[in-house]
Amino acid sequence: MTEPTYDILGIGNAIVDVVAAAEDQFLSRHDMHKGAMRLIDTARADALYAAMPPGRESSGGSAANTCAVAAGLGARVAYVGKVADDQLGRVFRHDINAAGVHFPTDPLTGGAPTARCLILVTPDGQRTMNTFLGACVALEPADVHPHLIALAKVTYLEGYLFDPPAAQAAFYKAADAAHAAGRQVALSLSDPFCVDRHREAFRKLVASHVDILFANEAEITSLYEQNTFEAAAEMARADVELAVLTRSEAGSVILHEGTTLEIAAEPARVVDTTGAGDAYAAGFLTGYTGGKPLSICGRMGSIAAAEVIGHYGARLTRDLRPRMAAITH
Amino acid sequence: MTEPTYDILGIGNAIVDVVAAAEDQFLSRHDMHKGAMRLIDTARADALYAAMPPGRESSGGSAANTCAVAAGLGARVAYVGKVADDQLGRVFRHDINAAGVHFPTDPLTGGAPTARCLILVTPDGQRTMNTFLGACVALEPADVHPHLIALAKVTYLEGYLFDPPAAQAAFYKAADAAHAAGRQVALSLSDPFCVDRHREAFRKLVASHVDILFANEAEITSLYEQNTFEAAAEMARADVELAVLTRSEAGSVILHEGTTLEIAAEPARVVDTTGAGDAYAAGFLTGYTGGKPLSICGRMGSIAAAEVIGHYGARLTRDLRPRMAAITH
Repeated sequence: MTEPTYDILGIGNAIVDVVAAAEDQFLSRHDMHKGAMRLIDTARADALYAAMPPGRESSGGSAANTCAVAAGLGARVAYVGKVADDQLGRVFRHDINAAGVHFPTDPLTGGAPTARCLILVTPDGQRTMNTFLGACVALEPADVHPHLIALAKVTYLEGYLFDPPAAQAAFYKAADAAHAAGRQVALSLSDPFCVDRHREAFRKLVASHVDILFANEAEITSLYEQNTFEAAAEMARADVELAVLTRSEAGSVILHEGTTLEIAAEPARVVDTTGAGDAYAAGFLTGYTGGKPLSICGRMGSIAAAEVIGHYGARLTRDLRPRMAAITH
Repeated sequence: MTEPTYDILGIGNAIVDVVAAAEDQFLSRHDMHKGAMRLIDTARADALYAAMPPGRESSGGSAANTCAVAAGLGARVAYVGKVADDQLGRVFRHDINAAGVHFPTDPLTGGAPTARCLILVTPDGQRTMNTFLGACVALEPADVHPHLIALAKVTYLEGYLFDPPAAQAAFYKAADAAHAAGRQVALSLSDPFCVDRHREAFRKLVASHVDILFANEAEITSLYEQNTFEAAAEMARADVELAVLTRSEAGSVILHEGTTLEIAAEPARVVDTTGAGDAYAAGFLTGYTGGKPLSICGRMGSIAAAEVIGHYGARLTRDLRPRMAAITH
């Protein structure tokens, strides 16, 4: 087994976010369920964009957010995802490269444009997401290079990537390549509605190919169809080596074989919760791949999440490395 | 003279802003003068973008900001400026349309891409701008339709538009069309460095074609090459019907024939001063074209500017119309 070049390799939907403020009536007029992510086609994306207030664009995508935050914390990170050969694709590539993430995936040429997520922020601070998958649907097993996967300690898969049809095969290829190289596979469930859309596929993947599972309370109870967090957590403990479950302001719970660690949430002024789970995973995996004890990995996750929810946007705006280095328990 | 359809018609560089945080060393390494706007060519734009930290994109442009804010205050507004037929051009068009501004200019096809301004924000909150003019340089007299100009009470020209070579001719065509229809012409000087680059052209335009001149202290002293604000202001009074001069936290001064009005600045927590002058002009012109007394126009300018500097970005985030309607002196 060669020395790993990367701590984390993320695979996900490469998306540019378009964020605009909107009233509740706008959501109901356009049949949106507040707080949820839904998939939209080209026609609806065009119609919704035309009706939307002025927006701001920034690079997004769940696993891409995790990769950018982890790189900012000092991890060595690579990312695999599909953009088009267009302006928004170049914006996405610039931003993830500038965050210090290696991004080797060839852009799609002659197909759909770069994916975008039209995000409406209501006055209560909630975000409602409408994702046009665009070039993401072209991610296929050929984009997953086993030699690259073999170079990363942990391959991190984003649940949303189960939505594009060809991506599940790419997931399995990546997981098999990671295990063949003696590496580990992590999965984030992304969203309870995403779990609903793909529950059986997720259950199968988790039980057979996942070493580290990230989920929040709504996702884990949906995955295992349990009424209580505790019951779902025990099912996760039986399925995976390491289950990392986040509970918003109630902190997080880490289950590893017979051990259960409860980690407090970091105090934070909540401005925008987008990317909290992505940042938690980034902090946790940066610690984990750096050989830290699980309790410190959890604290690193909490601190990264607290930074990200303290401002608009899902990526770090401050250098947290001195703070992370000072954690002793 | 037919009834005007628009209160304000703005003409300017149609630009998408890319904003990123940077340290002072980044500015010196890339030969930037902090706080200034400079023009860059394709090669430097590509090199600088590659070296820049991750960014956020939003629609910008000085006159476009004024138009968007004025529309938000209830004015009827049109905008003329050149984008390309590309993704960033569609983003610009979406945002200005969504702000309620009529934007009839045909996009450029087969030429340069949509203009962008690479903006570096240093820890002291100052913004340093690098503008790649792109499609803006293709704005030409043919894009200025006299029948459209004739429909607007005030045609508002952005000083930055003197940078693209063909635009000066478009300016004169617009000013002549406005006066032929019995309308008025306003000019904003935009930036002291822009005034330096085009001082003689500005002096000639101001003396011969401008009815309403907007400038800040650095711009007006540069235009008239005077050491004191007072001396420059008197020269402006002699040149134009209405000189509207802003002095940051010292408020603004309105000179109209023998009358001088001093307007206090609105108290504001300064987060980002970008667009303060654009917003002031928007508030002033919304009042002016609505038939308000000059003192109220000035207050409307101050209130709009205070809103915009209280957050990141150069456009309104709150509905100021109730507040504006309540101004009685």
